[in-house]
Amino acid sequence: MQLDNWILKQGELAPNRIAVDDGQTQLTFLELNQRTEALASQLDQAGALNSERVAILTQNSLDGYLFAMAILGSGRTIVWINWRLSDDEIKRQLDDSKPSVCLVDDALWRDSFDDGFIKFTEIRKIQAKGHPLVSEFNKNDVASIMYTSGTTGQPKGVMQTFGNHLASAMASALNLGLTSQDEWLCAVPIFHISGFSIMMRGLIYGMTVRLVSHFEPTRVDQILTTEPVSTISVVPYMLKKLLALREKNRIQYNANFRCMLLGGGPIDRQTLALCQKYQIPVVQSYGMTETCSQIVALNYEDAENRIGSVGKPLFLTQLKLAKNHEILLKTPALTKGYLNRPTALANKQTADGWYCTGDIGHFDDENFLYVDGRIDDMIISGGENVFPDEIEAVYLTRPDVDEIAVVGIDNPEWGQTPVAFVVSHRKVSPQALIDFGRQKLAHYKVPRQFIQVDHLPMNAGGKIQRFKLKHLL
Amino acid sequence: MQLDNWILKQGELAPNRIAVDDGQTQLTFLELNQRTEALASQLDQAGALNSERVAILTQNSLDGYLFAMAILGSGRTIVWINWRLSDDEIKRQLDDSKPSVCLVDDALWRDSFDDGFIKFTEIRKIQAKGHPLVSEFNKNDVASIMYTSGTTGQPKGVMQTFGNHLASAMASALNLGLTSQDEWLCAVPIFHISGFSIMMRGLIYGMTVRLVSHFEPTRVDQILTTEPVSTISVVPYMLKKLLALREKNRIQYNANFRCMLLGGGPIDRQTLALCQKYQIPVVQSYGMTETCSQIVALNYEDAENRIGSVGKPLFLTQLKLAKNHEILLKTPALTKGYLNRPTALANKQTADGWYCTGDIGHFDDENFLYVDGRIDDMIISGGENVFPDEIEAVYLTRPDVDEIAVVGIDNPEWGQTPVAFVVSHRKVSPQALIDFGRQKLAHYKVPRQFIQVDHLPMNAGGKIQRFKLKHLL
Repeated sequence: MQLDNWILKQGELAPNRIAVDDGQTQLTFLELNQRTEALASQLDQAGALNSERVAILTQNSLDGYLFAMAILGSGRTIVWINWRLSDDEIKRQLDDSKPSVCLVDDALWRDSFDDGFIKFTEIRKIQAKGHPLVSEFNKNDVASIMYTSGTTGQPKGVMQTFGNHLASAMASALNLGLTSQDEWLCAVPIFHISGFSIMMRGLIYGMTVRLVSHFEPTRVDQILTTEPVSTISVVPYMLKKLLALREKNRIQYNANFRCMLLGGGPIDRQTLALCQKYQIPVVQSYGMTETCSQIVALNYEDAENRIGSVGKPLFLTQLKLAKNHEILLKTPALTKGYLNRPTALANKQTADGWYCTGDIGHFDDENFLYVDGRIDDMIISGGENVFPDEIEAVYLTRPDVDEIAVVGIDNPEWGQTPVAFVVSHRKVSPQALIDFGRQKLAHYKVPRQFIQVDHLPMNAGGKIQRFKLKHLL
Repeated sequence: MQLDNWILKQGELAPNRIAVDDGQTQLTFLELNQRTEALASQLDQAGALNSERVAILTQNSLDGYLFAMAILGSGRTIVWINWRLSDDEIKRQLDDSKPSVCLVDDALWRDSFDDGFIKFTEIRKIQAKGHPLVSEFNKNDVASIMYTSGTTGQPKGVMQTFGNHLASAMASALNLGLTSQDEWLCAVPIFHISGFSIMMRGLIYGMTVRLVSHFEPTRVDQILTTEPVSTISVVPYMLKKLLALREKNRIQYNANFRCMLLGGGPIDRQTLALCQKYQIPVVQSYGMTETCSQIVALNYEDAENRIGSVGKPLFLTQLKLAKNHEILLKTPALTKGYLNRPTALANKQTADGWYCTGDIGHFDDENFLYVDGRIDDMIISGGENVFPDEIEAVYLTRPDVDEIAVVGIDNPEWGQTPVAFVVSHRKVSPQALIDFGRQKLAHYKVPRQFIQVDHLPMNAGGKIQRFKLKHLL
């Protein structure tokens, strides 16, 4: 199905609405149109449009936003590169995606970059004319590719089509509502689906994207207080930082604010209580790069009685559990596949087309979904399923546990037993931790060993690499 | 693509929200679920689900709404029958659509109805158990069939899929916004797309449909004043009646009111001025049965400078003009075809898939669309295109012209010339009308003859049958 080029379309439908605001510059959709066209001409002149894909390595800068829009508007696919990656990791993703070039935010330039890379400012210097914007998008064309951070194995390039982004934006609007005054604050990385989906919703809704370069809690708190932001996407860490500031800053968030969209894990009772105290309408959600962001959400009104739940599947998503309790889903937001791996998606789908998420979950008696953990992380001990997440959450309530990761080790008697790696600012007592666990958890869930470490191994996406911990045992 | 059965889905997502309210009874989405299931069991028992289609002849009653939902929920297609049709017309539509049965609102029962018809109350008496609701809808399945009123020729059954309704609802939400407090007043017939699209949006948004049995201006004005209705769909006649009441009733519409959605023709300057005076945000729109309701809209903020325009194509619709100025469009809301006429849709499409609306239009310098009239009604006089609509609008500003219809007659000198049929409460002077026209219109647009008649021939949809007038000449 053909669609109008969304950048041009909003230039028609909402020419005077603000498309993007980085705190210094505000651009209307008409200006976005003009800027995108000028940039696309420069990219064309630079040869950056010579193949179907263009990579970009950027912070949440206005320039990063504009270059990404210029790639899209030219009918090319954006390959988003996480700037936290090592040179080797970047090289692997570029070798896989073969973009014409990798555009680089000047602030992120590395001396190791060769002539496959070019700074934003180099593009901006080019004299160019022309109208390389396409008039149409195709629903099945790939708008963006993001490499899943993958806690094990090689990252895979998830291909997100225009249709995927459209379905995601629509389902989100049906859940969160939509007004012409909406403004979405983007403090999560635009190279992640959490951030890029905000940019795409901005285009689809004709909505203002309020960009901030990075998450600085005081600054974000101030923006939420003084600017007409209606929505912000956060992960639990960000939510907690913002709540802590609410203790001090008694000026309420602006009157237009109506949604704190939380991804990356459910909320605990204590955090929810703080949200209630400060009247912050938090919407918990569950989603993944492969589904173009959230596909399940728990609305604020249901939150109190569903602690730990991520809610119900959004309007366009169907969801069920497999026999082994793995979460399966169908959604029009599901990726069309992994780049250069023609069978990889099919390998994660059942014969009748259900996508296997790799997450284990359960429903309560009113069909609210709870995500218990990754199937790969699950520990089977004496025939019982044990999820590291649950154990970790219990221990994280202790002041002496800063970080914790639980993995299973083979045990001749029980099959597997849990073992914990702990980061603490002081020396921890394994026995005290075992005693604590026995008060809070079923016996078989209590780790048999507690190993204190300086830090936990994380990938560039901030996820713990449990397989590396297992190697330490 | 599979979708959850929307009735069941909203029973999950918004169980306690009001789905429908007829002023006496309010049903939540959970209750709608239960009622639909019970009714579907009774329909099943009555044999009404034995084929893929079920016809329904109903007013805007709660029962009519529920029976329609039960047909949908059972995975069958609703065949909507206009209760203003004659027995013969009804028979032709049922012969064409071959439903298992035609369900009839008791108030609309006719003695002529045979055993292919059954009263709502007869169904309600049936003892039945079972769960005949389907769990899924398919995007390409036909949800509803509506016979176009067609001012000439045989009515054709327009097949509207679930995907069409979904696309229409989504595009409307992107244009009008969406909140969890929305409530849409349905005073237009549910057997027309104007009314049924409200029912479908209710299901898709999880929004309250406020049903009224028919348009009674005082009652509707009262509802808009005292109940939390956010939106109402109207045609120009209804808007004018409502505005006249605003002169008397100084209590403003309720605080939740934000959209008067106007279909069936653009607004004149005088009417717009009244909307502005009473702060009624009117959104003009253009659409048809074949596109599942509006696909082009003019927002209130643009209205003042675009008198006569219907606005810009909504987000998912592409629109252009053919060489002869016919309006062509592509939209995911476009019907999949006409029942039993496999080539009829293709006959109205260009080789590259543009649907030819039969309407002539033009754009202004900022791409706002103006609909000039039907291509079949266009009069070509001395090489100039003349549209009856324009001439009629000019004459309707006269107090002595109650109704008017202009048609072309063959003329050896000019090819065609316009002739007018006028309905008036007093004797009109043709010469006075000609003199009036010469002040307001180009010479070639002024009708050469004015023929006074008692009434204009209309079809059941309220459209003037110009071909019958030509026979009078």
